[in-house]
Amino acid sequence: MAVVSPAGTAGSVAWLDALRRRCGHDVREFVEERVREHFGGRAADTPAPEVLPEFVSGGKFLRPVFAYVGWRCGGPESAVALRAAASLELLHCFALAQDDVMDGSARRRGRPSMHVVFSRWHREKGLSGSADRFGESAAVLAADLYLVWSEQLLRGCGLDAAVLARGWPVYDRLRSELAVGQLGDLLNDARALPSWTDVLDVIRRKSGNYTVRRPLEFGAALAGCEDHVVAALGDYGGLLGEAFQFRDDLLGVFGDPAVTGKPAGDDLRERKATSVVALTAELADHRQRGELAELLALDVVDEEAVVRWHDLITATGARDQLEKFIDDRVRRALEAIDLAGLPHRPADALGVLARQCTERVR
Amino acid sequence: MAVVSPAGTAGSVAWLDALRRRCGHDVREFVEERVREHFGGRAADTPAPEVLPEFVSGGKFLRPVFAYVGWRCGGPESAVALRAAASLELLHCFALAQDDVMDGSARRRGRPSMHVVFSRWHREKGLSGSADRFGESAAVLAADLYLVWSEQLLRGCGLDAAVLARGWPVYDRLRSELAVGQLGDLLNDARALPSWTDVLDVIRRKSGNYTVRRPLEFGAALAGCEDHVVAALGDYGGLLGEAFQFRDDLLGVFGDPAVTGKPAGDDLRERKATSVVALTAELADHRQRGELAELLALDVVDEEAVVRWHDLITATGARDQLEKFIDDRVRRALEAIDLAGLPHRPADALGVLARQCTERVR
Repeated sequence: MAVVSPAGTAGSVAWLDALRRRCGHDVREFVEERVREHFGGRAADTPAPEVLPEFVSGGKFLRPVFAYVGWRCGGPESAVALRAAASLELLHCFALAQDDVMDGSARRRGRPSMHVVFSRWHREKGLSGSADRFGESAAVLAADLYLVWSEQLLRGCGLDAAVLARGWPVYDRLRSELAVGQLGDLLNDARALPSWTDVLDVIRRKSGNYTVRRPLEFGAALAGCEDHVVAALGDYGGLLGEAFQFRDDLLGVFGDPAVTGKPAGDDLRERKATSVVALTAELADHRQRGELAELLALDVVDEEAVVRWHDLITATGARDQLEKFIDDRVRRALEAIDLAGLPHRPADALGVLARQCTERVR
Repeated sequence: MAVVSPAGTAGSVAWLDALRRRCGHDVREFVEERVREHFGGRAADTPAPEVLPEFVSGGKFLRPVFAYVGWRCGGPESAVALRAAASLELLHCFALAQDDVMDGSARRRGRPSMHVVFSRWHREKGLSGSADRFGESAAVLAADLYLVWSEQLLRGCGLDAAVLARGWPVYDRLRSELAVGQLGDLLNDARALPSWTDVLDVIRRKSGNYTVRRPLEFGAALAGCEDHVVAALGDYGGLLGEAFQFRDDLLGVFGDPAVTGKPAGDDLRERKATSVVALTAELADHRQRGELAELLALDVVDEEAVVRWHDLITATGARDQLEKFIDDRVRRALEAIDLAGLPHRPADALGVLARQCTERVR
């Protein structure tokens, strides 16, 4: 079942790293151009002209990388196809800046979130009105710009209109799914305890599709890949997307702050309806359900509460079960790729990415 | 200086009304299709599937109408060009839903704002967490969908790719200007008293360009109009856009709630940095500046305070001055059109629209 030879692995890791660097360069340059074009007058006095290009750096460029690997299943190495793929990173910046406002997340990638940067600036300048409110509104507007600029980067990437035309339906679907999925997420967060089924539904619609499946399908569509290739990438993407989200949810509860860039147990403090909490509820016995009810009723989730949460999640078996779910989905994802007979370069890269997206420390 | 004959006026009013009805039909149908496509799972349980199509109704379709009139300066009557123009109404719905969250506006077009609809639903369902917060987040996501769908409607309107290619640069510019302008607006609202110059800068960048100038330029670009036509439309649009915003600001302070669909003096209550307040400060004498400072320092703007505001604005001459500014800009806008030698249909329509956009009661 090993689809990647050791030599292939090392080569793929280097290739993927080079793609990430190039994407990072492309999106930063594009955002800097747009800032020069649009920021005059009042808005130029805000931190926006510095923050907008800075925020696009420091990510893992997962979505552009998946899109470009999808492209390479049917297309040649191409700087313009990589620019098309890079547009998904701006879409991701849109989602991050906006989600952090909605979730009240103060940190992102080890730095203050976008809305925190703007609210601090408001306070430092001694402006009138609520600094928090100003910060949130400004971050939402910054997110709007990323959403608009993503599509603009894609349309002007240099691919022929006929090639782009194959990608637009997937791109549009991805964007709508993202917003509708986030609405489902909000709704799950607004229930005391959403069911495992409801959480899995949102994971499938939003995170899973958005991070792996649609980017792969988008790249493959641009390259005009045959149906059986798109289907295999879809299977891989659906499975790996779920595994990725389970890992992300485990890291949000158990992750090392030095690695995640967020405080320990952050998802618990923000009362997110994650797969970890939903599965804990699903697996809890009578006594554990009592402990769960107590933890959910707490007004403040402090250090001690995080420790109690950790113990409960582990005791119900939810942690082990999610690790098994991850292993199972990664295995089936790799099988789907193995059977599709893809070219070596993308096949090897998908093996490496399956590991990178689900490793216990990232 | 009368560019419109009485017969031409009646004909144009009927033509413009027919355009509005057709636009309203097109955007509502498009949104209903998108809702059917995307709303399954958790998010389908929210009011979104009903609210999204409803919210696009009831507007004045100013931006699509200006875009289509721009198109008619160089193109024939065309149902697909009207669909392209209609995409600007979805962009406007995006702006309205999002601005109402940022401004804390509870009503829009005589109905509860988007975020109020969602927060009420949250309360009625007895969900956990803050209902206001949920409402605001859901409205921002609904706005995202309108932004995405606007571009999708435009791309798929049925115009040839080569025709669309002429319109994208204006469309992209309009979208970025809108977000950057709103950021400038926030910043002006966050100063105790922004200068007349700062307010005028934001009006030119945001409202003026966004409502009249860019839509006209967008339509004219799609139709491949000659440079001198685009320039004349730009002049008209810049001038009428300012006049439109001055009228809007006057209505926000002095308007009849039965007509505006908003409470009397709403802009004063929301402490918006409008042209009315900035010009009042600019024109106030020493004693009036004292009264202004008192009004600005009030914690709550009640009925009595609104009356004091009205008296002060009128006494400084700001109200009369804005009326003169409006008359002056409308006159110069019509001159620009008169000199350009446009076809009768769009020339007549621009005369009617200049009046409709700036009349004292709307």
